[in-house]
Amino acid sequence: MIPGADLRSDGSCLFTVWAPFAKQMQVRLLGDDERVLDMYRIEKGYWQIEANDVKAGTRYLYRIDGEEERPDPASNFQPDGVHEASAVVDHAAFHWSDQNWRNYDLADYIVYELHTGCFTPEGTFEAIIEKMRYLRDLGITAIELMPVAQFPGERNWGYDGVFPYAVQNSYGGPDKLKRLVDAAHDHGLAVVLDVVYNHLGPEGNYLRDFGPYFTDRHVTPWGDAVNLDQAYSDEVRDYFIENALYWLHFYHMDALRLDALHAIFDMSATHFVEELTKRVDRYAESADRRVHLIGESALNNARLLRPRSEGGYGLDAQWSDDFHHSVHALMTEEEFGYYQDYGRVEDLAKAFDEGYVYTGQYSKFRKRKFGNHSGDRPAEQFVVCTQNHDQVGNRVHGERLIDLTDFESAKLAAGVLMLSPFVPMLFMGQEYGEESPFQYFVSHSDEKLVEAVRKGRKEEFSTFKQAQGVPDPQAVETFERSKLNWEKPEQGEHKTMLSLYKKFAEIRRTIPAWVDRSTQNVTSMKDKQILIWHREGDACEGRYLCVMNFSKHEQKVRLFEDGERWRKIVCSGENAWGGPGSELGEICEGR
Amino acid sequence: MIPGADLRSDGSCLFTVWAPFAKQMQVRLLGDDERVLDMYRIEKGYWQIEANDVKAGTRYLYRIDGEEERPDPASNFQPDGVHEASAVVDHAAFHWSDQNWRNYDLADYIVYELHTGCFTPEGTFEAIIEKMRYLRDLGITAIELMPVAQFPGERNWGYDGVFPYAVQNSYGGPDKLKRLVDAAHDHGLAVVLDVVYNHLGPEGNYLRDFGPYFTDRHVTPWGDAVNLDQAYSDEVRDYFIENALYWLHFYHMDALRLDALHAIFDMSATHFVEELTKRVDRYAESADRRVHLIGESALNNARLLRPRSEGGYGLDAQWSDDFHHSVHALMTEEEFGYYQDYGRVEDLAKAFDEGYVYTGQYSKFRKRKFGNHSGDRPAEQFVVCTQNHDQVGNRVHGERLIDLTDFESAKLAAGVLMLSPFVPMLFMGQEYGEESPFQYFVSHSDEKLVEAVRKGRKEEFSTFKQAQGVPDPQAVETFERSKLNWEKPEQGEHKTMLSLYKKFAEIRRTIPAWVDRSTQNVTSMKDKQILIWHREGDACEGRYLCVMNFSKHEQKVRLFEDGERWRKIVCSGENAWGGPGSELGEICEGR
Repeated sequence: MIPGADLRSDGSCLFTVWAPFAKQMQVRLLGDDERVLDMYRIEKGYWQIEANDVKAGTRYLYRIDGEEERPDPASNFQPDGVHEASAVVDHAAFHWSDQNWRNYDLADYIVYELHTGCFTPEGTFEAIIEKMRYLRDLGITAIELMPVAQFPGERNWGYDGVFPYAVQNSYGGPDKLKRLVDAAHDHGLAVVLDVVYNHLGPEGNYLRDFGPYFTDRHVTPWGDAVNLDQAYSDEVRDYFIENALYWLHFYHMDALRLDALHAIFDMSATHFVEELTKRVDRYAESADRRVHLIGESALNNARLLRPRSEGGYGLDAQWSDDFHHSVHALMTEEEFGYYQDYGRVEDLAKAFDEGYVYTGQYSKFRKRKFGNHSGDRPAEQFVVCTQNHDQVGNRVHGERLIDLTDFESAKLAAGVLMLSPFVPMLFMGQEYGEESPFQYFVSHSDEKLVEAVRKGRKEEFSTFKQAQGVPDPQAVETFERSKLNWEKPEQGEHKTMLSLYKKFAEIRRTIPAWVDRSTQNVTSMKDKQILIWHREGDACEGRYLCVMNFSKHEQKVRLFEDGERWRKIVCSGENAWGGPGSELGEICEGR
Repeated sequence: MIPGADLRSDGSCLFTVWAPFAKQMQVRLLGDDERVLDMYRIEKGYWQIEANDVKAGTRYLYRIDGEEERPDPASNFQPDGVHEASAVVDHAAFHWSDQNWRNYDLADYIVYELHTGCFTPEGTFEAIIEKMRYLRDLGITAIELMPVAQFPGERNWGYDGVFPYAVQNSYGGPDKLKRLVDAAHDHGLAVVLDVVYNHLGPEGNYLRDFGPYFTDRHVTPWGDAVNLDQAYSDEVRDYFIENALYWLHFYHMDALRLDALHAIFDMSATHFVEELTKRVDRYAESADRRVHLIGESALNNARLLRPRSEGGYGLDAQWSDDFHHSVHALMTEEEFGYYQDYGRVEDLAKAFDEGYVYTGQYSKFRKRKFGNHSGDRPAEQFVVCTQNHDQVGNRVHGERLIDLTDFESAKLAAGVLMLSPFVPMLFMGQEYGEESPFQYFVSHSDEKLVEAVRKGRKEEFSTFKQAQGVPDPQAVETFERSKLNWEKPEQGEHKTMLSLYKKFAEIRRTIPAWVDRSTQNVTSMKDKQILIWHREGDACEGRYLCVMNFSKHEQKVRLFEDGERWRKIVCSGENAWGGPGSELGEICEGR
């Protein structure tokens, strides 16, 4: 059952809502032609009514048992925010021009994660379109939008969304998002949308008034868990699964990033993720499309990545936190929180070999064994990064890696990321070495909630040295401070960094051996803090060698046999890349 | 790390206890040679000390941080009950005589579930030994003991156990349990032990004083869940996994029945059950033994039964509630609670075909879809029953099936159970048609808890018509009422019933085709309430036909082609089996 308001070409509109305990359900259409229509109870707690002469944009509310009036849990648009009426959207009205677009294989993805509000000064979908040429020239192949589901106010990372089907009004709403996707496809860029199925935000969540969307049988960091395995859970599962299909179908999304799968609790015989991938695969097949489901998971459980036929959940890929932490801890020498589990060059070598670093060994941070074997999974099943919204934004001051290290290290990180066999993901601005922070911001209207968030944020960092001066999440300055500075990509080291990322993207694009982990051979030199990897291309491609020096000083290392001749492709330490200089010639000979 | 007191032949005893947050741990040895010994902190929160000159039976307590004295969480014996000192057990002192015993394949198991306290007037292990010949003559191949881990008081089903390694003192303690197992093996009977790894009982649980054995991150019907996936969970997992190995090794158990796996919450990359089966398999291989792990699970998730190599958890078998409910609802026409989901002869046919009845379809009782595909699993992976401690004892008055139907129906149920392709399990007394109830009983010492249990029991049945007169769980009469009456098997219809069970066991034992589901063909005749199954033996064995009439009256049904000749093996309606008589001759011809 597809919930929401389905507007047809003849002006009729089918309203469908799930409210299993309601005695009476009505829909109130607002505006010039205001009407209150009684709905019919159909199967499994759903209610429906078809209204005639409905126009796109018509506002409506559901009236439960003749009393409370509430926006639609499956609202496609909340033009006036989370507390006001829903609006009918005419999806057929948009004229797509991407008929020739074909999505890429995941192995060809180079992802660019961005926050719509902070990516441009305007903070809108339209403004992103203006940057499309910049992104294409950078060499990425996919943009990933942090969640755009309607959240309270105008400033939010997106994880406080409360209308999973509605497109944030302050970003531009449904039509502008479609324009963005259409433009991306026109520029040869896929679009990944971040969707949140493990919780709803704390303000404007009216779902409880409709039905048992939540359960207290499981505990999440954000309160009651979504009801995926108790009574009435079929319809809750459907609500989220139809949501995934909705974004793929009506918004032409190429992939979805599923937030925090470790907070999805489901004891059902068929796990929610398993059912989701099955339904999405079925949709993709029937629509003759290639779509990808990428999970965020802190479980290090390769079961999520295995095909359903092998007892897996069938995800196409997952984010690899281990890769990030390995690079970050090695470069910054930070040891707090989960970084205590990383920091050795061998950890990074393990990530290259296995995917996960923690494949069952003891984690000091977690105080238990962590993870299982992932070495059988292909490289394109791991999305890796050296920065992302969480790793930057969940620091007290939201510092980026370049703020914690230096320019040379940031270039090295760029190489580790872009030349890894995995799917690289950049966080907006890192390609030109943006130093501005990405901080945690909200714009709730409930003053009590605002205080709770402020307090929570301070407490979260109470054990850190830097706990002083936690930025105020509610302050507009915190949001403004987190925006990119578009003059930088043209300037000095920023420009150099940008060129280097482009160079790496080009290498990745032009040398298929880079992403073939089957021919990879990784060696770590513990004392020297050096990581070497070696790849065998096919006969025409030859062999490739990549040497990464994580120590802070110049070192000599014997890389190949006497008489061998190797051609240099790129050396980040050279003057040309703003480095201190390098002895490496264009042709290197073993001797 | 194996927790507990390990007594060696030289009189030394190694005490090992896990107390990760303790600053000081001591063991106090009681008796003539009273001593307090400081323990050493070794790895991962374990403490150890080796004491000399320790005798079997020596009482001891752990002293935590110089203050609280507590019995050992891994106590092997609590001679004076749950609140008193633990006792050292010398496992090497027992002389086993079962060197020639070899456990059966699960396909050859016919299980007999019994409660030690109620099976005999004496309520002890020793008294069970006296019944060994009776059990062997019945034709069963395995006895299953309801939990014997130390619980508070002398009367308890066993699921309130609080010392998973200790053998209930009132049943006879460790040595007598070994005597029982040894005697069973001597009589050709395997022994299955019911173990509880999902919770501990409400009285006498001192584990919290030692460490984080429990977590509030998951919710069970019995309070905090066992900590299997949070910080420090490695050692908690080990505590239970070592427990499984302990029963197999020191008590020669042939199989374990794992209580309520649906209440085991574990988000780890390697699920607790997966780790358990792996460790047990490894033990079995190294010991050159065949052991079975049988789960109780209300999840209808065949993942539990699949090999680990196929993404499963590797259990050998599970209890099939669906089979029970199908038979029960069909025979009693009861529709309350979960019985509303069953009652059609087709449900039973589905159970025969698939294992589970609910393989993903909607359950009215659960108000959601339930289960997944199990048809690929072999029949010996399902332990089935028409009565068990839960299905009888969790009724208001603990009535058995024969009390709810009649003698003829009880004989039919015997046939459904014993001639099914699955592993049949009898509940003590059903083999001779015991009519005495099996009721819920406890013997707590905490008056508040007693009141809470009484209240809970009444509330549990508040929606049932029979809620009047819920037996008092704490009353000794409730326990006494639940005992078997050993004069019955020799009397009238009881004797007939017993003979019929023996006959069925003989058929099962002598005709291998019975348990071969691959050649099975099940047909249900909805209008007639008749179920027919057909099995093809090999060339020497011929074909077998089994006709079950679940209607309350005689019916004619055409079973085979003209000219075919069939030989009758058994007809439960005959006078010889106490029935109303049958027209069926020794040889039946199609015409």
